Amino acid sequence: MGGDNGPSVVVPGVALAQKRLAERNPRFLLHGDPDAIQAELDKHQVVCPACEVRPAQSVIPMDAKPAKALRGGRGSSLWNAVQAVKDGEARAAVSAGNTGALMAISRWQLKMIEGLERPAIVASWPTSKGVTTVLDVGANVESDGTELVEFAIMGEAFYRAVHGRHLKPGERPKVGFLNVGAEEEKGHQEVKEAQRLLRESNLGLNYYGFVEGNDIGKGTVEVVATDGFTGNVALKTAEGTARFFAGELRGALTSSLGGKIGALIARGALGRLRERLDPSSVNGGPLLGLRGVVVKAHGGSDPKGFANAIRIAADLADSDFLAEIERNTARLLSTVQARDTLAESA
Amino acid sequence: MGGDNGPSVVVPGVALAQKRLAERNPRFLLHGDPDAIQAELDKHQVVCPACEVRPAQSVIPMDAKPAKALRGGRGSSLWNAVQAVKDGEARAAVSAGNTGALMAISRWQLKMIEGLERPAIVASWPTSKGVTTVLDVGANVESDGTELVEFAIMGEAFYRAVHGRHLKPGERPKVGFLNVGAEEEKGHQEVKEAQRLLRESNLGLNYYGFVEGNDIGKGTVEVVATDGFTGNVALKTAEGTARFFAGELRGALTSSLGGKIGALIARGALGRLRERLDPSSVNGGPLLGLRGVVVKAHGGSDPKGFANAIRIAADLADSDFLAEIERNTARLLSTVQARDTLAESA
Repeated sequence: MGGDNGPSVVVPGVALAQKRLAERNPRFLLHGDPDAIQAELDKHQVVCPACEVRPAQSVIPMDAKPAKALRGGRGSSLWNAVQAVKDGEARAAVSAGNTGALMAISRWQLKMIEGLERPAIVASWPTSKGVTTVLDVGANVESDGTELVEFAIMGEAFYRAVHGRHLKPGERPKVGFLNVGAEEEKGHQEVKEAQRLLRESNLGLNYYGFVEGNDIGKGTVEVVATDGFTGNVALKTAEGTARFFAGELRGALTSSLGGKIGALIARGALGRLRERLDPSSVNGGPLLGLRGVVVKAHGGSDPKGFANAIRIAADLADSDFLAEIERNTARLLSTVQARDTLAESA
Repeated sequence: MGGDNGPSVVVPGVALAQKRLAERNPRFLLHGDPDAIQAELDKHQVVCPACEVRPAQSVIPMDAKPAKALRGGRGSSLWNAVQAVKDGEARAAVSAGNTGALMAISRWQLKMIEGLERPAIVASWPTSKGVTTVLDVGANVESDGTELVEFAIMGEAFYRAVHGRHLKPGERPKVGFLNVGAEEEKGHQEVKEAQRLLRESNLGLNYYGFVEGNDIGKGTVEVVATDGFTGNVALKTAEGTARFFAGELRGALTSSLGGKIGALIARGALGRLRERLDPSSVNGGPLLGLRGVVVKAHGGSDPKGFANAIRIAADLADSDFLAEIERNTARLLSTVQARDTLAESA
C-alpha cells in the first residue's frame, strides 16, 4: 500500500518481478486493502498463482511519525509485512512506504543483530566501473569509529550478496571510509578511529583506505562507509547534480535546430545513456543490521524500481549475508572490548 | 609560481584578466622567479605595462606541510604575495599554490577578523537558477553552531560582492544550512543550534531554513552553509558525478554511428553546454574570515580559471564585504554572549 502511488505501482512491480525471477519460483504475500489490490491485479491482468492477498486493517500514512506508527501501527499493511518475516512465513519484506515507520517497526519486531544499535540504509549508484554502495545514507546522524566499521562490514556483505556480478571470481569488494583527503592524518576523530579499528580487527575485508567524494563516481572502491549525515548529503548532492546535468543537456538539445536534429539522430545512444543512469536500475535500499531482510523501495518508485527492490530482497534472502555480518560484528566487538580492557588495566 | 603548472598558466591568466578588467585599470605584482616569469611574458607576447615582476627567494612546494611552509616560507613567492596585501601594496592576493600553506601564511600575516578562528574556503557552482555558493569546503573539519552561522555571514557577504549579478535589484541572497531534511527536528545538535542562533541574532540575512544536498543543484538558495567535512564531500561528490555523467555522454555519442553523426550536428549546443558547466567559469575560492582578500585558484587551473580567480579577487577588493562580515560577526557574538550570561545567571 506504500509509496506515492500505492498498489498501482506495487502490483505491476510484483508482476514484473515474478517474470524476472521466474527460475527462482518466488511467492508473494500482498498486504493491504484487498479490494484496492485486486483492482490492480485485474487492471494489469496479472496472472499470479504465487500471489496471495492478505487483508490488513489499516495503512500507515507516508507522513506519520515513527513513534506514532509504532504505537498505532499493529495490524497495518506495513506491520503485517514485517510480521510475516518474523513468523518465518516470508523470507523478506519490501515496502515503498514510510521509511521511519518501516525502520521503527522492523527494529521492534525483528530486533537488531547482537552489538548493533540502529539499522543503516544503503544506497547503490552507477559509476564508471559498475556500481558503488554507500552507507549510511540517512538513519544515523552521528556515528563513532565503531559504528563506521559496522557500516563497512554490513556494506561489504550486502555488496557481495547483491552486486557480486560486478566482481571478478574470488574478488572481494574494496572498502573505503569517506573523508576529506586520502592521507592518514586527514579528517575528524571518528574516521581516523574507524580506520585504526578496521585494521586491528581481523575481519577479512579488502580495505582500501580513505576515499573522497569524487571517488564515488569514479568507482575507486565498491563500498563507501560514512556517517548518515554525510552519506545523505552526498547521495542527494549526486542526485541533484545528475538532474541538473540532465536538464542542461535537454535544454541544449532542444534550444536550436542543430541540437534537435542531432538529438534525433543520436536518440539510440542517448536512450542507452538514460537507461544506464536510470535510478530505478539500482533502486532499493535495504535496512541493514536487522535480524531479517527488509528492503525499502523509493517512495516515488515506478514498477521497474519496485521490481528491482524485490530482486535485491531475493538476492539477500538467498545469501548468507546475515551470518557474515554477525560473524564480523562479533570480531569487531571483541577487538573493541580487548582494547577497552587494556586501557582500563593500564 | 604555484599550481600544477606555475607561470605557464599564471602569466597568460594575468594577461587575460588584464583585458577583461581593463576598465578597472588593474595592476599586477608577479612574485617569483623573474627568469621563469619573464620567459612566459615573452612567450605569450604579453604587453602589460601594469605588471611588475617581484623576485622571490624560493617557492613553497605543492606538497609542503602548512607548519613547515609557515616556518621556512618567509621570502617565498607565496609569502611575498600575502605580505604585499598586509603592507597595503596590493589589495588582494591570488595563488594557485599549496592551499594549506596559503591558509597558514595568510592567517599568520593578515590575522583573522575579530571573533573568527580559522579561514573558511568557499566554492561556487552552476545551478539551474545561476550560481550557488557553498562553504566551508575543506578548512574546518568540525564546526559548532556559532561557526556555522559565521559561515552563513561570510558566504552571504561574499555572494553579494562576487555573484550579485545573479540577484534582482535590492534582493538579498537566500541562505540555508545543509541538513538531512527540511523539518525543524532533523539533523545533529550543531545544525539545530545554528538555525536557532541565526534566527535570534539580528543579522539582516535572508534566511531560508534547512536545505538538502539536492537543493544545491536546484539553486533553492544562493548560499549554503555547512561544516568543512560535509561541504568538502558534497563538492567533490558533485564534481565526481558531473565527470561521470560527462564521460557516459561522451561514451554514448562515440559508440555508434548515429551517436557520432548526432553529436556532430548538435556540436554547437553541446559546446555551449560544456561552456556552461566548465568549472573554470566559477573557479576561485577565497579564504574568508581574514583581514584581507586572498583567493585560492584551483591547482589545476587553466589561464581562464586563473583569470576568473583574479576577477573574484578584484570584486572582493572593490566591495565592503570585510566590513559587513565584521559587523554581522560582532552582532552574532553579542547574541552568544548575552545568552551565555543569561544561562549563568539562571
